[in-house]
Amino acid sequence: MNIEGIRVLDATLRDGGLVNDFFFGDEFVRALYKANIDAGVDYMEFGYRASRKQFDPKSFGKWKFTSDEDILKVIGEKDPRMKISVMVDVGRTDFKEDIGPKKNSPVDLFRVATYIDTIPEAIEMIGHINSMGYETTCNIMAVSRCTDEQIANALYALAATPVSAVYIVDSYGALYPKQTRKLTRLYHKILSPVGKDTGMHAHNNQQCAFANTLEAKDTGAKWLDVTAFGMGRGAGNCHSEALIAYLNGKRYHVEPLLKLVTDWMLPMKESGIVWGYNTSYMLTGLTNQHPRTAIAATKNNDTQYTEQLKFLSYQ
Amino acid sequence: MNIEGIRVLDATLRDGGLVNDFFFGDEFVRALYKANIDAGVDYMEFGYRASRKQFDPKSFGKWKFTSDEDILKVIGEKDPRMKISVMVDVGRTDFKEDIGPKKNSPVDLFRVATYIDTIPEAIEMIGHINSMGYETTCNIMAVSRCTDEQIANALYALAATPVSAVYIVDSYGALYPKQTRKLTRLYHKILSPVGKDTGMHAHNNQQCAFANTLEAKDTGAKWLDVTAFGMGRGAGNCHSEALIAYLNGKRYHVEPLLKLVTDWMLPMKESGIVWGYNTSYMLTGLTNQHPRTAIAATKNNDTQYTEQLKFLSYQ
Repeated sequence: MNIEGIRVLDATLRDGGLVNDFFFGDEFVRALYKANIDAGVDYMEFGYRASRKQFDPKSFGKWKFTSDEDILKVIGEKDPRMKISVMVDVGRTDFKEDIGPKKNSPVDLFRVATYIDTIPEAIEMIGHINSMGYETTCNIMAVSRCTDEQIANALYALAATPVSAVYIVDSYGALYPKQTRKLTRLYHKILSPVGKDTGMHAHNNQQCAFANTLEAKDTGAKWLDVTAFGMGRGAGNCHSEALIAYLNGKRYHVEPLLKLVTDWMLPMKESGIVWGYNTSYMLTGLTNQHPRTAIAATKNNDTQYTEQLKFLSYQ
Repeated sequence: MNIEGIRVLDATLRDGGLVNDFFFGDEFVRALYKANIDAGVDYMEFGYRASRKQFDPKSFGKWKFTSDEDILKVIGEKDPRMKISVMVDVGRTDFKEDIGPKKNSPVDLFRVATYIDTIPEAIEMIGHINSMGYETTCNIMAVSRCTDEQIANALYALAATPVSAVYIVDSYGALYPKQTRKLTRLYHKILSPVGKDTGMHAHNNQQCAFANTLEAKDTGAKWLDVTAFGMGRGAGNCHSEALIAYLNGKRYHVEPLLKLVTDWMLPMKESGIVWGYNTSYMLTGLTNQHPRTAIAATKNNDTQYTEQLKFLSYQ
């Protein structure tokens, strides 16, 4: 199996943070950090660096506002085998104040998340962050709602920036394998001539997160997002233990992640934190919509799926 | 979307019967029958016609031994909009005694399930059943363990029989989308010149059942197996509501199946009948093995996945 250039990125604290308001205990974060290193995971994302002016720090755990100190306090000395990323959302971060020089920071990579209509703002952020000495990627959310022309324009604009990679972010879990291949080819065609990679961030609304990640990989994507036991918004993500098991061999080792599922992820689920596939998520994925109505339905134990579909069909 | 020649077959009573020993109440069977008809499902499988000499009828519900009378008693008059199938396993059915002339039988199709090494016996059964006036398919189980040469030999032999279709049966949930496409092309190449179709029966061990079914369809498969809410052995199958939602339009309608999930499948799960993805099934799929160890682990709440992988790796 060709794994040259593959970068597996664990986004558990970030996407998983969306289902527990980023309240992860330090002991869990250390266990996740160690498991990812032992598994050969290439990057681990320590949540967001969101604006403390826009979001009340009392309402969220620290990994919504991740500072360099937060990271170092939990991991102690940084292990050189795995890089560290933090996500920043366009319009939701005070990047000029909160992202200083790379010198002494444990963060290697900032991932800039944007919708298609704020690409210019994303490019401004990428420029600043890169000038501070960090690696960057651009994560285009909700691509399933964009036209090929919109995407191509965004990719051509990003091709002229210092980003290492641009991600297909299937925020709505709407993509099927065939569409994933088509999108990956479009990204790859524009990005590879300028030495940039394509990334895949999948959601499991239609139980295609793992399959789509494999298809993206086989069509040229190099950056592959996963989360432990699929923990993430709504239906969750591509399971890290599934992808690492698939890639298992010289560089990747699944055992530490299996142990993490046993010791931490199952107890977390049993404690009442909710994520993963259900029929409500299938319907928002099917109709290519934000999962918010399915999240509400799941929270309310609303299983009136025919009514949910009717509502979604009128959106 | 091209749905010409597509035949969706609901196998809930058959594959689902493997997780409740075929103890389905008549009211559920009627609800499933009606939902499938309203959804546009093409065939519904009423369990197995297994040998009463080999299996104790006291230990199983009637859908393990399905007689014409069992079917008619539950459905009343047969609705011409949907055909009816029954599965027979090579070596586990008294087909000469138990399958009589089609005249007056509500069964349209017998599906002959076989492993690769009993194809001659399967062909003998197909001959008998066809001579009685029924349509037949051949379902080659555990194809993920067969070589291309074995499969090609089986397909050439089956090409000379009256079967309507030959199925890729991913009994171990081991296939990835790429392999599914490769296998479908192999089947299609040998079967289509003699006017026979390819079928896909997927298992969800690695969360690829739906994705693999779509990939098989797009590569030429026409017969697509589903079960309500994925009910089936181990990790279960391709969810009927997911596939029908995907195909939704003129011929197929998802609403009746969504209502079935709400009214019947969720309560059935809550009653303690167990099926669906977990990490144990992922590991048997990954290592391309029968799910029996994962079924036992699931029953025993054994979540020691590193130990399970170690065991599977020595098999």
